[in-house]
Amino acid sequence: MRVSELGEFGLIDLLAKMVSSSQDKQTPAWQRLIIGIGDDAAAWYGDTSTQLATVDSLIQDVHFSLDTISWEEMGWKALAANLSDIAAMGGVPKYALVSLALPGHTEVEDVTALYRGMMEGAQEFGVAIAGGDTSSAPLVIITITILGSTKSQGKHILTRSGAKPGEKVAVTGELGAAAAGSEMLTKQLQFDADTANCLRRAFLHPCPRIAEGQLLVEKGVKTAIDISDGLISDLTHLCKASQVSARIEIDRVPVPPVVKANFGDRALELALSGGEDYELLFTGSSEIIDRVTRAAACPVTVIGEIVADEPGKITLVDSKGNPVSLHKAGWEHFTTT
Amino acid sequence: MRVSELGEFGLIDLLAKMVSSSQDKQTPAWQRLIIGIGDDAAAWYGDTSTQLATVDSLIQDVHFSLDTISWEEMGWKALAANLSDIAAMGGVPKYALVSLALPGHTEVEDVTALYRGMMEGAQEFGVAIAGGDTSSAPLVIITITILGSTKSQGKHILTRSGAKPGEKVAVTGELGAAAAGSEMLTKQLQFDADTANCLRRAFLHPCPRIAEGQLLVEKGVKTAIDISDGLISDLTHLCKASQVSARIEIDRVPVPPVVKANFGDRALELALSGGEDYELLFTGSSEIIDRVTRAAACPVTVIGEIVADEPGKITLVDSKGNPVSLHKAGWEHFTTT
Repeated sequence: MRVSELGEFGLIDLLAKMVSSSQDKQTPAWQRLIIGIGDDAAAWYGDTSTQLATVDSLIQDVHFSLDTISWEEMGWKALAANLSDIAAMGGVPKYALVSLALPGHTEVEDVTALYRGMMEGAQEFGVAIAGGDTSSAPLVIITITILGSTKSQGKHILTRSGAKPGEKVAVTGELGAAAAGSEMLTKQLQFDADTANCLRRAFLHPCPRIAEGQLLVEKGVKTAIDISDGLISDLTHLCKASQVSARIEIDRVPVPPVVKANFGDRALELALSGGEDYELLFTGSSEIIDRVTRAAACPVTVIGEIVADEPGKITLVDSKGNPVSLHKAGWEHFTTT
Repeated sequence: MRVSELGEFGLIDLLAKMVSSSQDKQTPAWQRLIIGIGDDAAAWYGDTSTQLATVDSLIQDVHFSLDTISWEEMGWKALAANLSDIAAMGGVPKYALVSLALPGHTEVEDVTALYRGMMEGAQEFGVAIAGGDTSSAPLVIITITILGSTKSQGKHILTRSGAKPGEKVAVTGELGAAAAGSEMLTKQLQFDADTANCLRRAFLHPCPRIAEGQLLVEKGVKTAIDISDGLISDLTHLCKASQVSARIEIDRVPVPPVVKANFGDRALELALSGGEDYELLFTGSSEIIDRVTRAAACPVTVIGEIVADEPGKITLVDSKGNPVSLHKAGWEHFTTT
């Protein structure tokens, strides 16, 4: 069978099972492992706090096109996307390692611009760029590893697997602007300058919800994921990992006015399936979510609830509770359909 | 200027300076950083031990060819090459993150073979594969991050920058078999089965000197690097970082008999410039090196000494002390000459 038939998530499942079933569980490293393959980041017991580590590769013409993103923006975005995985664990990011593969004909100025963008992000979120690796390649590949930790020892982290029926599903910020920005750039849609800037920034300069992730832990939230693939896709991951189902009231999904105004009927689809907003999607009791909402610097919106049904099933309903359907579910690597 | 004009090491220098000069030194992460860009691994103070992290990308048709390496061998080698960087710091490897980019038409069986090879290495060296990332790409890219630590807190690590004039230069094991294996495979050289197996294994199934790295620290060695680019190239890195020069007696360089017998005059060149042997190159007083030699399970050979001369200058001499020259210095990315 080919990887494209199995799909990205099928492949991850297969590799996770393979690793888990054949690794020696007696090694000190495995004994201290809390979260292995399949969550936003790996987690293990350090001596006084839980250690977190995550890695992500951005590949030219798969994840980005040099036609639509500047090198500096790419630096910021590559770091931000990785930091978002630490945010989704409720952690504090600390160190970054950057593995950079480039064609030899790349201008040095472009590489320094890339680093400028990365370092702007590193500065903003208190991360030290501590090392990495460079090599030649026929295309640009940026792989960033982020190491971080929790504020205290123990299982005070956000995982994908703790959602329980009856909990509310909530989201930070708004959804859809990044996908709208992507569409604007790839389809060369023309908007007024303010709209164009706003959408471009949403897509190319996302802000990982680091402080919000830590706030969720503090307020008692146990389950979260960041929205990188799309709301439905990432909620599906969360529900599968938690062995639950979710019902989302589509009218509650927070879509920014600028997306509604410029994308009409498609605004909701962008919000549900677009991805790359890097907002946090989380679950908890109404009381816990109220506490988060009162303390958060950004909007927090309840968009649905966790129900006991087929694991990973997402039901979309309108304000009257009637089911609605949507075709495109989210981004998955390898699949061609 | 293009990256190819600057070369890999010029680019690393530039990025290291850029990061160092513009990062906020007041962040907790930076304050605890011991070794940043430019050594085998990054190192920072953890709560009770020094933390180590390293990353390396293997790119199809740059670092390996699917014509000459099996997927399982590639899995072993990718992990081993990364573990070697932890060995060169004298550390204990603990966790691995694997970022895997593949064309969709890749056979799932090949991916599981890759993981089998990696897990064989993980098992052997007590490493837990804790996470990663998969994505589609036009070619195969394997990026592995290894997280580890020292056995105790403080600066008990091996760096590249501690070599002092008067110290001896020593190397573990033997050099040249990996490069000989690479040449055999790429040039389709015909040897008897034992020779072919031995050279193939040296190139495709290297063993990182994890235990030896820890032994070096224990016996008082301060300065080491692993030989991935080639003896001369890696010794140059070490000497530049230490602001010293080195003199190597070429007749002392340990070349395996199988390489001498089959590559004649070229055997020494393979040993000096070939790379990928993943042996440890280190410096220390005669007493310290004697202590290492007596305790090590592998051969340890003194091949020269550190001298006070132009930083990074390597002088090759014969047994009478007369200078000899060699053209090819080692592997560097981006440069085309």
